[in-house]
Amino acid sequence: MKPIEVFQKYLRQSVLVEVKGGKTYRGVLDGFDQHMNLVLNDTVEVLENGTTKPCGTALFRGDSVLYVAP
Amino acid sequence: MKPIEVFQKYLRQSVLVEVKGGKTYRGVLDGFDQHMNLVLNDTVEVLENGTTKPCGTALFRGDSVLYVAP
Amino acid sequence: MKPIEVFQKYLRQSVLVEVKGGKTYRGVLDGFDQHMNLVLNDTVEVLENGTTKPCGTALFRGDSVLYVAP
Amino acid sequence: MKPIEVFQKYLRQSVLVEVKGGKTYRGVLDGFDQHMNLVLNDTVEVLENGTTKPCGTALFRGDSVLYVAP
Amino acid sequence: MKPIEVFQKYLRQSVLVEVKGGKTYRGVLDGFDQHMNLVLNDTVEVLENGTTKPCGTALFRGDSVLYVAP
Amino acid sequence: MKPIEVFQKYLRQSVLVEVKGGKTYRGVLDGFDQHMNLVLNDTVEVLENGTTKPCGTALFRGDSVLYVAP
Amino acid sequence: MKPIEVFQKYLRQSVLVEVKGGKTYRGVLDGFDQHMNLVLNDTVEVLENGTTKPCGTALFRGDSVLYVAP
Repeated sequence: MKPIEVFQKYLRQSVLVEVKGGKTYRGVLDGFDQHMNLVLNDTVEVLENGTTKPCGTALFRGDSVLYVAP
Repeated sequence: MKPIEVFQKYLRQSVLVEVKGGKTYRGVLDGFDQHMNLVLNDTVEVLENGTTKPCGTALFRGDSVLYVAP
Repeated sequence: MKPIEVFQKYLRQSVLVEVKGGKTYRGVLDGFDQHMNLVLNDTVEVLENGTTKPCGTALFRGDSVLYVAP
Repeated sequence: MKPIEVFQKYLRQSVLVEVKGGKTYRGVLDGFDQHMNLVLNDTVEVLENGTTKPCGTALFRGDSVLYVAP
Repeated sequence: MKPIEVFQKYLRQSVLVEVKGGKTYRGVLDGFDQHMNLVLNDTVEVLENGTTKPCGTALFRGDSVLYVAP
Repeated sequence: MKPIEVFQKYLRQSVLVEVKGGKTYRGVLDGFDQHMNLVLNDTVEVLENGTTKPCGTALFRGDSVLYVAP
Repeated sequence: MKPIEVFQKYLRQSVLVEVKGGKTYRGVLDGFDQHMNLVLNDTVEVLENGTTKPCGTALFRGDSVLYVAP
């Protein structure tokens, strides 16, 4: 599976996004582009203690993304 | 929704911008370009303790943006 | 307003520039280019305690700029 | 062996990926592209104490990769 | 004044260069190119305590420059 | 000697690679490309205390390399 | 003097290279290219206490170089 296909596969599904600097977010993947910019719906920041902080529809810059997983 | 459409959707609305390094700003999205450079009106920096510091019309470089949310 | 128009709007006016790493400068915007390189006249570094340190006509590299505000 | 051939060689095999910032992951290499974006199946984060945390099918941005080894 | 004109203006004059990471240098600007790579003659590193350490003719990579001032 | 010729010279020889962030690796240079991506066989991480940790055939991204030496 | 001419001038001479992150090296400049990748012969790392650690013929990636001086 090519990297870009992962986004196609995960569209409309819940994904975890870890960004550079260490923060982690979870949301429903709603869109992406060739720069790996990502749109997540119903996004929450996943805090260290396991609780979450709601962020709504969030856009993540591709170059701040470390990895994406389901 | 493609990433760039998020900006179109949020135009004239209040958005939260987290920048690399951890600072967070809120303002009314007034413009953007293909580099994700953003113009916010009535911007405030949102401080750790929840208080805010006014910054007026601010321009954020796209490559310093971590994520954008409503 | 497009991001680049912000610079046009602020030309000859006092602007605040925060750079990556956290330092903040204030000066009169005297020029800019498409890389967001900025020329400020009568620049001062704004220190933590609110005092300032004069820097004269300073050139800031666009890729070191975090945000620009009036 | 050219760098890109390493990925061809390790396809469908277990690889270790160390990312910038210091975290380490292990998974089965399932895909890659010319930016060194990597897809790993059955990924686990390898923690300092040797234990692991499952991440499923994960996509790593090429520019966050420090090195890849079997 | 366009950013690149600042360098033209300061040629053969003493300039202060702050680089990413926080170090500061002073020297006579002897050359530059479109990447903002800079050549300084009689360069000194300006230390925290105000004393200086001589570096001779030094070349600074443009992308390590934070700002340049007289 | 041009920089790229260094890699040609060191092919099949043991080299030390220091990466950004400070870690150091030693291995037999098995390949490289124009991005300075490097393939090392029989790689070991050289730890602070002088001991080593084996990494097998490792691929280093060029932009994470600080310097390469024999 | 244009930045690239500095390298031409210093060819076969001893130069000091400070890299991003703060380490400093001294060696005889043996080659360079348009990316400012540098080859140094008889390189030593110059430690804080003034002592040196030999590195032989070392290649420095241009984008890790902060400045070069004699």
